[in-house]
Amino acid sequence: MRKRFTLQEYKIGVLSGDRTKLSQAITLAESSLESDLALASDLVQEILPHTGKSIRIGITGVPGVGKSTFIESFGQMLVDSGKSVAVLAVDPSSQKSKGSILGDKTRMEKLAGNKRAFIRPSPTGSTLGGVSSKTREAMLLCEAAGFDVILIETVGVGQSETAVKSMVDFFLLLMLAGAGDELQGIKKGIMEMADGVVIHKSDGDNLANAKRAKSSYENALHLFPLGDNKWSAPVLIASSLTKDGLSNTWEMIQKYKDQTQRSGFWESNRAKQRLSWLDENLQFLLGKFFLDHPQVKKMLTKNRTRVENGELSPLSLARDLITTFFQSNQNHK
Amino acid sequence: MRKRFTLQEYKIGVLSGDRTKLSQAITLAESSLESDLALASDLVQEILPHTGKSIRIGITGVPGVGKSTFIESFGQMLVDSGKSVAVLAVDPSSQKSKGSILGDKTRMEKLAGNKRAFIRPSPTGSTLGGVSSKTREAMLLCEAAGFDVILIETVGVGQSETAVKSMVDFFLLLMLAGAGDELQGIKKGIMEMADGVVIHKSDGDNLANAKRAKSSYENALHLFPLGDNKWSAPVLIASSLTKDGLSNTWEMIQKYKDQTQRSGFWESNRAKQRLSWLDENLQFLLGKFFLDHPQVKKMLTKNRTRVENGELSPLSLARDLITTFFQSNQNHK
Repeated sequence: MRKRFTLQEYKIGVLSGDRTKLSQAITLAESSLESDLALASDLVQEILPHTGKSIRIGITGVPGVGKSTFIESFGQMLVDSGKSVAVLAVDPSSQKSKGSILGDKTRMEKLAGNKRAFIRPSPTGSTLGGVSSKTREAMLLCEAAGFDVILIETVGVGQSETAVKSMVDFFLLLMLAGAGDELQGIKKGIMEMADGVVIHKSDGDNLANAKRAKSSYENALHLFPLGDNKWSAPVLIASSLTKDGLSNTWEMIQKYKDQTQRSGFWESNRAKQRLSWLDENLQFLLGKFFLDHPQVKKMLTKNRTRVENGELSPLSLARDLITTFFQSNQNHK
Repeated sequence: MRKRFTLQEYKIGVLSGDRTKLSQAITLAESSLESDLALASDLVQEILPHTGKSIRIGITGVPGVGKSTFIESFGQMLVDSGKSVAVLAVDPSSQKSKGSILGDKTRMEKLAGNKRAFIRPSPTGSTLGGVSSKTREAMLLCEAAGFDVILIETVGVGQSETAVKSMVDFFLLLMLAGAGDELQGIKKGIMEMADGVVIHKSDGDNLANAKRAKSSYENALHLFPLGDNKWSAPVLIASSLTKDGLSNTWEMIQKYKDQTQRSGFWESNRAKQRLSWLDENLQFLLGKFFLDHPQVKKMLTKNRTRVENGELSPLSLARDLITTFFQSNQNHK
């Protein structure tokens, strides 16, 4: 059986930057046991005053764009310049990720071996709501352990981007030159979430294509409205092979930080993210209680298809489910 | 006091296309009285087999783009060709909409006077979750009353677009030529939601600009990934003054309908929308019970700012709120 520590042991371990204790604390937060969750919740509360000092960067892109090699090279550049870097991953599709995590670990071998780096694969076998909440906790634990930069990798398909966007300061989209087909894998809407675009693998024969792609995307992004951060997403070209463009990427993120800290967006965005974290947690917990309720579950299983087919009004079913839930919750007493 | 009818009276009235009864049924669905809501829920269930035959079009664009004049001209063209048209509006910002509804009514005077048209301003003084649900109900009631086309207008700012996108077959974005400034009013992400873009007010001196804008947007939209509908949003130019481009707009929507009905997306999208309607209703009702709970309300009011400031972990507060809710729900017995 996995060993548990006391709240104080976890807290002191994390705050002193002890990697093993940090790993164990993240495992605790990822647990599905109620006693672990209660302890993890207390731990997050305890370390909260020591969080917030890192820069949180989300990185996305379709499979094949080279996220892991980019993170390895980019992370390496950062640790070489004296920064400490933690890498987390969000991938709710647990089946697939089991393979890719092993792959990632191999590909990030060099970074993983560096004592200023910490790599943590994504929690598997859980729903997105859960994964997203657990990744936030892992992020805060890494911050409390003193990491300067947190890189959160996401898979570029599905809903994980929205979740990651809602917990980072800067959202980076990796793309490939030669547009067209590669784009089809990206979910609609992700382009507009990006605070910056990097055309990856811009080396050798690809370089000319990459430069053309850069100006196409610059023109396109220019037509799109600015967000609340009043920042127009730059398009850069980079290569993990030649290392070209990696320092430009870091400069772009620094520039974003400077500009949004001056405008106040940086902090207001984080405040907003804290509230959406609360909201997510409430929805997740409330939904869990609701959907785990035996009679609700039974009624929903029986009638879901009828709603889908248009035979039963969603409004009627919702009302019936809610009534069932609250009535039998009272009867349970 | 407003008069209520029996379920049968509402049902017969709506199905026979009686405008007055249709209006009264929508008012019933917009009520906040529990007895009205129960009756409205039953009514929606009763008329459900008679829904689904119309084409549902969402129309958005920033204030000033001329949504009302477009809807008046476009709707007029449709009724002239023998179709019946219902116009609904979603605007959760009740304060503002009170003014603009009066404005809209005046601007849509000609259409409003046509016996094949039905114009219903947005329900005011409610939250978005509520408005969105009530607009779906109004839409179904209009369908059951036999309307061929439902136009749902939304304001181009805020969250109402996502709500409207989730209830229509085709989402149309109106834009102005001369990009730049006009775009700033549009919320990020709306561009990628559009199934078609119409550059409005493309007449007179504006025409050359509009043509330039058309090709810029075509290039930009081309770079963006296709959605599940495998449809690349066309960019058209149109004028409500000269009526140019209005029939092209209708042809575009017809083409979309043909293509997605063949591919099966049309129906699978509607099935998905029914499930998200269920989900929205559940979240809305569950959230309402939760947030209306006196102790939850008190605890949340007291601690929300502490979460926002980063003093209190959202996780801790969420757990405490949920515990309070379920404990005292049982104690209430």
